[in-house]
Amino acid sequence: MFQKRTDLALEARELWQESAEKNTRLNGVKATKSRLEGYPLTCVDVLDARGEQALGKPQGSYRTLDLSAFWQRKNGFFDRAVRALGMQLRELLPEEKGPALIVGLGNRAMTPDAIGPLAADNILVTRHLISAMPKHFSGFRPVSVFRTGVLGTTGVESAEAVRGLAAEVHPSVIIAVDALASRRTGRVCATVQLSDTGIAPGSGVGNHRAALNAETLGVPVLAIGVPTVVDAATLAADLLEESGSTPPDMEALQKSQQNLMVTPGDIDQKVRDLAKVIGYGINWALQDLEIEEISALLS
Amino acid sequence: MFQKRTDLALEARELWQESAEKNTRLNGVKATKSRLEGYPLTCVDVLDARGEQALGKPQGSYRTLDLSAFWQRKNGFFDRAVRALGMQLRELLPEEKGPALIVGLGNRAMTPDAIGPLAADNILVTRHLISAMPKHFSGFRPVSVFRTGVLGTTGVESAEAVRGLAAEVHPSVIIAVDALASRRTGRVCATVQLSDTGIAPGSGVGNHRAALNAETLGVPVLAIGVPTVVDAATLAADLLEESGSTPPDMEALQKSQQNLMVTPGDIDQKVRDLAKVIGYGINWALQDLEIEEISALLS
Amino acid sequence: MFQKRTDLALEARELWQESAEKNTRLNGVKATKSRLEGYPLTCVDVLDARGEQALGKPQGSYRTLDLSAFWQRKNGFFDRAVRALGMQLRELLPEEKGPALIVGLGNRAMTPDAIGPLAADNILVTRHLISAMPKHFSGFRPVSVFRTGVLGTTGVESAEAVRGLAAEVHPSVIIAVDALASRRTGRVCATVQLSDTGIAPGSGVGNHRAALNAETLGVPVLAIGVPTVVDAATLAADLLEESGSTPPDMEALQKSQQNLMVTPGDIDQKVRDLAKVIGYGINWALQDLEIEEISALLS
Amino acid sequence: MFQKRTDLALEARELWQESAEKNTRLNGVKATKSRLEGYPLTCVDVLDARGEQALGKPQGSYRTLDLSAFWQRKNGFFDRAVRALGMQLRELLPEEKGPALIVGLGNRAMTPDAIGPLAADNILVTRHLISAMPKHFSGFRPVSVFRTGVLGTTGVESAEAVRGLAAEVHPSVIIAVDALASRRTGRVCATVQLSDTGIAPGSGVGNHRAALNAETLGVPVLAIGVPTVVDAATLAADLLEESGSTPPDMEALQKSQQNLMVTPGDIDQKVRDLAKVIGYGINWALQDLEIEEISALLS
Repeated sequence: MFQKRTDLALEARELWQESAEKNTRLNGVKATKSRLEGYPLTCVDVLDARGEQALGKPQGSYRTLDLSAFWQRKNGFFDRAVRALGMQLRELLPEEKGPALIVGLGNRAMTPDAIGPLAADNILVTRHLISAMPKHFSGFRPVSVFRTGVLGTTGVESAEAVRGLAAEVHPSVIIAVDALASRRTGRVCATVQLSDTGIAPGSGVGNHRAALNAETLGVPVLAIGVPTVVDAATLAADLLEESGSTPPDMEALQKSQQNLMVTPGDIDQKVRDLAKVIGYGINWALQDLEIEEISALLS
Repeated sequence: MFQKRTDLALEARELWQESAEKNTRLNGVKATKSRLEGYPLTCVDVLDARGEQALGKPQGSYRTLDLSAFWQRKNGFFDRAVRALGMQLRELLPEEKGPALIVGLGNRAMTPDAIGPLAADNILVTRHLISAMPKHFSGFRPVSVFRTGVLGTTGVESAEAVRGLAAEVHPSVIIAVDALASRRTGRVCATVQLSDTGIAPGSGVGNHRAALNAETLGVPVLAIGVPTVVDAATLAADLLEESGSTPPDMEALQKSQQNLMVTPGDIDQKVRDLAKVIGYGINWALQDLEIEEISALLS
Repeated sequence: MFQKRTDLALEARELWQESAEKNTRLNGVKATKSRLEGYPLTCVDVLDARGEQALGKPQGSYRTLDLSAFWQRKNGFFDRAVRALGMQLRELLPEEKGPALIVGLGNRAMTPDAIGPLAADNILVTRHLISAMPKHFSGFRPVSVFRTGVLGTTGVESAEAVRGLAAEVHPSVIIAVDALASRRTGRVCATVQLSDTGIAPGSGVGNHRAALNAETLGVPVLAIGVPTVVDAATLAADLLEESGSTPPDMEALQKSQQNLMVTPGDIDQKVRDLAKVIGYGINWALQDLEIEEISALLS
Repeated sequence: MFQKRTDLALEARELWQESAEKNTRLNGVKATKSRLEGYPLTCVDVLDARGEQALGKPQGSYRTLDLSAFWQRKNGFFDRAVRALGMQLRELLPEEKGPALIVGLGNRAMTPDAIGPLAADNILVTRHLISAMPKHFSGFRPVSVFRTGVLGTTGVESAEAVRGLAAEVHPSVIIAVDALASRRTGRVCATVQLSDTGIAPGSGVGNHRAALNAETLGVPVLAIGVPTVVDAATLAADLLEESGSTPPDMEALQKSQQNLMVTPGDIDQKVRDLAKVIGYGINWALQDLEIEEISALLS
């Protein structure tokens, strides 16, 4: 059956609402809206098995920060985005302030899939410094970084490789950054989703086959994702529905648009900018540093 | 008014046919279909002002090679594509075998716009060698290459910069390679258009503001283009029309999909491969060399 | 005959002093030392034909800023370097505040030769903006940028290509940025030379065959160069001389070290940082902007 | 004490011979010379503790292929180099034909250190294909690839990361590719050393702190290294000794040349070509394929 593709819990909830009878209640899911540093924030909490079933997402907390206004570049847009993301991340982080392993998933050579490795380039890497000069770097939390690369060029699933590295590095938390697919063009490069559920199989632009979560990796896994593409068939289906028409053969549509993605014309710049927000947000949440200090340490 | 966007003469003709009454004749345009080296070829000749008016393309010859079968990678697919492209190019080249200037238009850092600079990397550059060692390189035609870069990083229109260089290099022909927009997803990274009319203002993925043609540059300009994106609004409009629905506000649709493009998931690989076909095809047409010889000289 | 290779007027003067009898006077050359923003500055003015003959450099002003202290990254190191470079540049610029063309010479793909294209990436490009929106950008001086690329991949000498572009862009000054060879390892990535004489044939890491100067381009040409390599034979010769030994066959030494260069292990970082100093210094000298404003406009 | 730096067993033996009395015998080391596919081959076998002591290299077999003639690009130069390297590799591989893990050490962004990651790009990655379609790929040996990245950007020692991955992938052999330092400029980018001893701490251009060998990784480790730089102080010391002079302060010399390296001007092209020889040689040794088949599968 044709399945509209989305990696956002927010959109999974929308899809449920569209398909459900108006008088049905969505049980097992709690959603709230607020604003943080001037950016709209939607929290979708999947509370139990009923919620999991309805949305097709594992139990946990999903926070979607709407960064559409980021691109207007108004006063403090960058710093506010970093803090908003960092605050959400702090709420999801486990209490123990142990070592963190940041995982950049995806393909650096393919722009819509490059957000993970590019965010990794904006991380303050401290583990080796703390290990070599413990006194000098006592104020820092040990952070290491792993760029998984792509299955076709490594032969190793991201989940396997991360598990192997985690066995050496012993992180108390893993933060995985990945590109996502959205169903709405308006959300592409304009939202960031944070969750404490890790990364599900088949999600992301690169379509990971194995999950990265507490179960497979033995340590809490936070996921930070940015939708960078819309599946062309999902876009087409939405447009046709909006116009009130019922296309005769939805699967034919999917087939005709197969392997196509919809993406912004200026995606290179947008992905680079959002990768910086994510990297800085992670540094802000993990280390006790001001944004200017992060900037100075990274240059 | 909403304008479906295409840079292909083939599609301009389709659009005319869709809009026109069935019993109207398209005057001033001649179209023929054939096969070359196993690949389908469509020639659209715009013969006079009536044809220019109907298709919105300047008078001249437009040849579209359908390389869909290229991606099945069957026996000799690469060499056949190079020869097919090279033969068409030879038909369009002026008789005088003087120096050639190859112009790679577009932005190397943005994959769907990178076909021009990537093709330029596959050109046998000979002008300086012939100039330094005329006896050794007497068998070669002088070829120089110019990568225009992007207006935002140069401050200079491609047409201006090419005109300035042409005044120094004195080519007898300019061959400009550029990325195009198509209206059909099936043609993206699956067709190559060659024409003897140069490049029109507003065309290409990067939207050039000034024309590159014999009038502006003072020397015949051949254009080689590959559609690498579909304008998302054009795709949406086509899908809606196919489904029989008439959307109430076409311009709203265009606005909602603004600055979005539809592109293949594996575009990096495809653009690299097609840039190689184009570069080799140009070398094959300009120099008296076998494909293996081109390959050896480029490595 | 073996020729110690240097592109720095400062070193040409040193070489003259080493070779000359102690009581000889260097006529036609004036040298002064001072400090600017905390960095040592040496000015060597070649005043007439006697000076040209002695140093092998054309008549003009050569200013060498010693940025060794830059790498200690002490308070304000970056801003001070930008201002010091910018002030020297202002002294060399012609009075007429017309359009400027910045030329980045060299090969982006080869780190020691990449300073020109990398500096070009740090230039505020304004010409197209002023042309499109003259009222909005009335406060800016029109600046365009040209990255020459490498002879082997273009077939066109840098001087030819710049001349062609200048005929379209009509700059009142050209500023050319290039990598240089030094004779002293201590000066590599630690000095910047500015001059009003343009670029001589055979100089630079990429060895340009034709001069870029007022004579060949018809407009004043300032040159900004950074030594990024030491010729290995020159280094060897200096070491041997210092140790008091006279090697039996200097030319054999040169041959054995042919095509080798000495360069810092962390050259990638250093070249990127110095390219930023140069780009910012040019922006500071040409536009009426603070360094923070330049930074905001470039991001 | 000043230590001439070399990663080549061949040169460690030369250094011993230079320092030793002429009538001393080098016990515990066996050296032989031969030719393979037209390229000179030197085997240095360190047989026991006396050999280890004399050469400062662990017990094992070191084979140095002299590829100087490669750059003359004479008949069959590439295929012959691939086979010569592949044959030596086959002699060093353990008998069990189990899975192989290829490790590309070094920094892709710094050319002299990029040989590892570039060689990794030329490996036929088969593990995931065999795992997904075991019947189709039954003829292949499972191969996976790991690019370690650089300590400063990962926080994890290469040896740690490889050990973690090996625990997941269970290879029967690890082949590590790395850039080396030589003492002779003539050997830079002109030799390949293969050994069955893994990689020693402090060796390579990037200076690994922990060993990658059977002891640390629990599985046989072959090392393939190419010298891409000469330590400038080592070069200087050799030149001074050759000229018969004894510099008064060798450590001062080392300090003055600190962090400088001598490298070929065309190193980008050379490193890319040698990385291809290594990648192809590994494929040739591991899989039962002709060179043309490797080429077709990699494109």
